[in-house]
Amino acid sequence: MDKMSLSDLEVAEEMADAARAAILPFFRQSNLETSNKLDQGFDPVTVADRAAEKAMRAVLARHRPQDGIFGEEYGQHEGQSGRTWVLDPIDGTRGFISGTPTWGVLIALSTQDGPTMGIIDQPYIGERFIGSADIARSHGPTGDMSLKTRSTPSLDQAILFTTFPEVGASEDRAGFEAVSQHVRLTRYGMDCYAYALLAAGQVDLVIEAGLNAYDIQAPIAVIHAAGGIVTDWQGGPAHNGGRALAAANPQIHAAALEILRNF
Amino acid sequence: MDKMSLSDLEVAEEMADAARAAILPFFRQSNLETSNKLDQGFDPVTVADRAAEKAMRAVLARHRPQDGIFGEEYGQHEGQSGRTWVLDPIDGTRGFISGTPTWGVLIALSTQDGPTMGIIDQPYIGERFIGSADIARSHGPTGDMSLKTRSTPSLDQAILFTTFPEVGASEDRAGFEAVSQHVRLTRYGMDCYAYALLAAGQVDLVIEAGLNAYDIQAPIAVIHAAGGIVTDWQGGPAHNGGRALAAANPQIHAAALEILRNF
Repeated sequence: MDKMSLSDLEVAEEMADAARAAILPFFRQSNLETSNKLDQGFDPVTVADRAAEKAMRAVLARHRPQDGIFGEEYGQHEGQSGRTWVLDPIDGTRGFISGTPTWGVLIALSTQDGPTMGIIDQPYIGERFIGSADIARSHGPTGDMSLKTRSTPSLDQAILFTTFPEVGASEDRAGFEAVSQHVRLTRYGMDCYAYALLAAGQVDLVIEAGLNAYDIQAPIAVIHAAGGIVTDWQGGPAHNGGRALAAANPQIHAAALEILRNF
Repeated sequence: MDKMSLSDLEVAEEMADAARAAILPFFRQSNLETSNKLDQGFDPVTVADRAAEKAMRAVLARHRPQDGIFGEEYGQHEGQSGRTWVLDPIDGTRGFISGTPTWGVLIALSTQDGPTMGIIDQPYIGERFIGSADIARSHGPTGDMSLKTRSTPSLDQAILFTTFPEVGASEDRAGFEAVSQHVRLTRYGMDCYAYALLAAGQVDLVIEAGLNAYDIQAPIAVIHAAGGIVTDWQGGPAHNGGRALAAANPQIHAAALEILRNF
C-alpha cells in the first residue's frame, strides 16, 4: 500500500487512535510514574504522555516523513514540507491524574500561518472532535454530530469556561474575572474539553492564559471549522500560545475582547 | 413474572437505565426548555430532569410500590415499608446545560439512618458507580472495576475537589479555602462525578455546602462501600444535606475535619 495514499485526516485519526491505545492502560491506574516539569507549581508528566507522543510520531514516520513535528514531550523535529504536526499527547495532566474525563489528545497540522486541521480526542469517553477547511464534526458514544458554534449575541446570555480560577498570572485572572462578571454562567475544570464544547455549540466563551502553542492549535482548528473565533486578548493570532479568547461568534467575541484588551 | 423477584440493586439499575433513556435525547440539544427554580442564582431545570424522575418513579411503581420516594422534581411520596428511594434525576444541571460529561443521575435507597445503597450514573459516558453493603463496583467504557478509596495519609499529598469556587455562602467558601491551602491539588467543575472519582480511588477529598439530601445520599452510599467516609463539617451525619466532607480514609478525613470544624 502506498504510504502517501492516506489523507491528512486519515493520518490524524490514525495518530489519535494510536494515542488512545497508548494512554488508556495508564488512565486511573495507581502509582503512575510522575515527575514535575516545572520548578514551581504542579505539572506532572505521566508515562502515558510519553508513550502517546511516541506512538503518534511513529505514525508520522510511516505516513508523513517529510513533515515537521512539534510535540510537548519530545520537542521539535524539522521537516522539509513547510507543514508541522503540533502534538499535545495529554492536555490536562492535572485532570488526568485526578481521573476526570476532560483531558484530551491534541493534534494539529499547521503552517507558519497557523493550524489548518485539528483533532481534540477524549480517549476514555471515546469521543473525537475534528475540524479542517472541509470538516466540522464529532463522533462519540451517542454517534456522529456536526459541529456548529452558537449565536449567543451578548455576554449576559453567555456561558464562560476556563480550567481553573487562577487562569494564569494575577493580571490574567483579573481579565478573566472582568468578563466573568458579565456572563450568565462561569464554569471551571474542563481542560481542552471546554474548547470542544464551544465547537459543539454548548458554551460561548473559553478564556485561558499561559498556553503553549501545542495547547491551542488543535482547538483553534476545530473551533474555526465550527464557525467560531480564537484570538489572543488583543484580537491578534493565538496559535503561538499565551493568552487565548475563544468565542462562538463575532458578536460575543467582540464583547469579550472589549473587556480583555484592558488587561 | 413476580414483581418482587428483582433485587433492590436490579431495581436501582433498571431505574438508572430508564433515566438514561429519558435524559440522553435532550443532552446537547439546543433550545432546551429551562426555568429558574431559585429567585436568586441560576439553577435551570430541564425537561430531561422531569422526564427522568417520572421514568424512575414508574419503575418503582411496578417493582417497589410499598417504598417511599423523595425526588428533587416531584417531592415526597410516603411509603409503608420504612424505606425511601431518594432521587436526583440530574445532579449538576449547570454542567448539563453546558454539555459537560460530569453531571449524573443519583439514586439512593435509604432508611431514616441514612442510605444503604447508591448509584451515581453518567449517561453520556455510559458509566455507573454502585455501592451497598455487599457491592462496590463500577462499569463503564473500559469495563468493570472494583471501587476502593485510596490511602493518602496527609493533606499535602491530597487532591481536593469541589464544584465551583464559591462553594456556598462566604463562610462555606472560607472553610473550603482553608483546606485548599494545604492540599497538593485543588480542582473544580466535576459535579457529582467528583464523588465517583473519590470512590474509584482517584481523588482524596470532596468538600461541598448548600446540599440537599438528594444531592448527597447516593454519593454517601457509594463512598462508604468503597471504604471512604462522608460527614458534615462537624463530623456528624451528612445524609440530610447541608455541608459535606467526603474523604478517602480516616486519616485524611480527620485532617480536613480539624480545619473545617472552625467554620
